[in-house]
Amino acid sequence: MRILGIDPGYGRIGYGILDKVGNKFKMIKYGVIYTDKDLPLTKRLNQIYDKIIELIEEFNPDESSVEELFFFRNVTTAIQVGEARGVILLALEKSKVPIFEYTPYQIKQAVTGYGRAEKGQIQRTLKIFLNLEKTPTPDDAADALAAAFCHGNYGGRY
Amino acid sequence: MRILGIDPGYGRIGYGILDKVGNKFKMIKYGVIYTDKDLPLTKRLNQIYDKIIELIEEFNPDESSVEELFFFRNVTTAIQVGEARGVILLALEKSKVPIFEYTPYQIKQAVTGYGRAEKGQIQRTLKIFLNLEKTPTPDDAADALAAAFCHGNYGGRY
Repeated sequence: MRILGIDPGYGRIGYGILDKVGNKFKMIKYGVIYTDKDLPLTKRLNQIYDKIIELIEEFNPDESSVEELFFFRNVTTAIQVGEARGVILLALEKSKVPIFEYTPYQIKQAVTGYGRAEKGQIQRTLKIFLNLEKTPTPDDAADALAAAFCHGNYGGRY
Repeated sequence: MRILGIDPGYGRIGYGILDKVGNKFKMIKYGVIYTDKDLPLTKRLNQIYDKIIELIEEFNPDESSVEELFFFRNVTTAIQVGEARGVILLALEKSKVPIFEYTPYQIKQAVTGYGRAEKGQIQRTLKIFLNLEKTPTPDDAADALAAAFCHGNYGGRY
């Protein structure tokens, strides 16, 4: 089963793709989608949608795991990230990729056994579990890999 | 010029379509798009997108006026309404309808001359300005008409 993990955002959207075969994971790709800061926010939503569609078409995931969002400096930021999250969810829906959502706490717990683990600990643990050559960076990409890993281990049973 | 006004939401999305010819407005249609409460939120985003696209295809607006969102009971609500707003903006972008955004304060001021006007006052004023047979309801539809009216009067010059 191929899982696409996504860490939603407006300017940076982390993604991580894992194959799970039996109990083993194989990392396929991870990275960050950037949107153009000079464009109006509505055009950046369009970029996000198109790039998520491209990712789905290239890697053909069976399921997706999207991080839920909780904490923000202010309501304006929450709405903007919500807008970005909305078009990401729409891209998955339109592509008929089943969507699963996990809280940051659930994702951290799935990776490290501890829901309040620090970023560095998550990245080091992912490196070991996924047999990566180096610690995954930046944070957004590592978070997306962690979301995919979480779904691979707990899919639908949280 | 035909203007599509939208009052964004998750369960109810108000819309109002006005034609402006010279200094005069003609009301074309207003109403509310409802999404299915029994569906998961991600499927409701898909409904919102498809219904906005249908509206654009049927009425072919030249420009759009979308209410900005500011106040929420909590961050979860803000994110959900942000998600809905994101797919609405995407539908407008994909359809190449130029998007203009106004705050509730700006919209109220455009209609009544007073940024903190009550709903009832806005609806009564719209009835007069737009020469409607009855006071526009429900609130979401009236707010969308008000957004369209605001853009018709102040388009790009706020």
